[in-house]
Amino acid sequence: MTRTIVFVLFEDAEELDWVGPWEAFGALSQLEPGSCKLVAVSHDGQPVKGANGLRVLVDASFAESPKADLVVIPGGVGTVKASKDPQVLDFVRSQVGGAEAVTSVCTGAFVLAGAGLLEGRRATTYWASLPALRQVPGVTVVEERWVDNGDILTGGGVTAGIDMALHLIGRLWSPETARRVQQAIEYFPAPPYGDVPIPEKIW
Amino acid sequence: MTRTIVFVLFEDAEELDWVGPWEAFGALSQLEPGSCKLVAVSHDGQPVKGANGLRVLVDASFAESPKADLVVIPGGVGTVKASKDPQVLDFVRSQVGGAEAVTSVCTGAFVLAGAGLLEGRRATTYWASLPALRQVPGVTVVEERWVDNGDILTGGGVTAGIDMALHLIGRLWSPETARRVQQAIEYFPAPPYGDVPIPEKIW
Repeated sequence: MTRTIVFVLFEDAEELDWVGPWEAFGALSQLEPGSCKLVAVSHDGQPVKGANGLRVLVDASFAESPKADLVVIPGGVGTVKASKDPQVLDFVRSQVGGAEAVTSVCTGAFVLAGAGLLEGRRATTYWASLPALRQVPGVTVVEERWVDNGDILTGGGVTAGIDMALHLIGRLWSPETARRVQQAIEYFPAPPYGDVPIPEKIW
Repeated sequence: MTRTIVFVLFEDAEELDWVGPWEAFGALSQLEPGSCKLVAVSHDGQPVKGANGLRVLVDASFAESPKADLVVIPGGVGTVKASKDPQVLDFVRSQVGGAEAVTSVCTGAFVLAGAGLLEGRRATTYWASLPALRQVPGVTVVEERWVDNGDILTGGGVTAGIDMALHLIGRLWSPETARRVQQAIEYFPAPPYGDVPIPEKIW
């Protein structure tokens, strides 16, 4: 079975939020050819520019997107607009039910919230945005690296998308496969400034 | 001082190899506006497709590239060709001296080697490619997350580019700035399959 993984891109999405999972699933596909297919989509199929200026070409518009087995929604400053954009929200809602999992990274959680998909769920987001997510009615906000509700997953900020993707590979393929992907992307992190799990206010 | 950071892209470069540093320097620029400028370049200024199919638009051709303060060379299967490509090697060589640091991630080390820039240096690369790098005359190959020779830096595989970039930010800006960038990208890694620093053979 080849799973189709759809990356929902929009202006000012944070690059690593979605390239982390892109790489994890890409490495999976290198290790086990045919296991998954990566598809980037945008509103109209036109290129999008990330929060740090990276310009990427996409494979399809929302309307032409193939049926997704997995959906990845990045965060970034662009979610301020995307989380209120009917086209984005309709597209995301249209994937629920058909997809095995709809996932967000970082402030992508606010897109899920905007689509009404976090009600009654546990969820997380970028550490600096946890207070804002706590304002969304019906969401149980937790400070975890990722939160798995089965069909809806949310990841913490930016690099947390790598961890969430590895977790999901372990669940949907196998723990052994996920362990190999983790090795393939040499994910033996060594943050030079130590592990700082409870961040001070830097913004 | 605004540092210009040039990302040398080519067909089948591994996406996360260079998007990791892109994100770290991008977050730096978000925290301290004007601190750096990210520029993606390719042979002819045309879009390039990564090893996992990501298609990106670039800002300039090699010939039109602005003068770099820092250079990032990714790895990936594309380095088999890129490490022997005179245009790539000439471009990389032309940056030495002018740039404060020329860096590689993963098998990008073979591009540096091809350009003759690792002779008499300590260097590292993707774990599975360490034996191949040991075949390059004059290079002292070490198994470290990143290796800093001052003007030439090499990182380990894929995700190691994030660590190397944070180290470099700490050196060229300040440790305090690098610590804030590490927080900004929520780099509090939690690899779900444990830390596996000495990988078994998975390829």
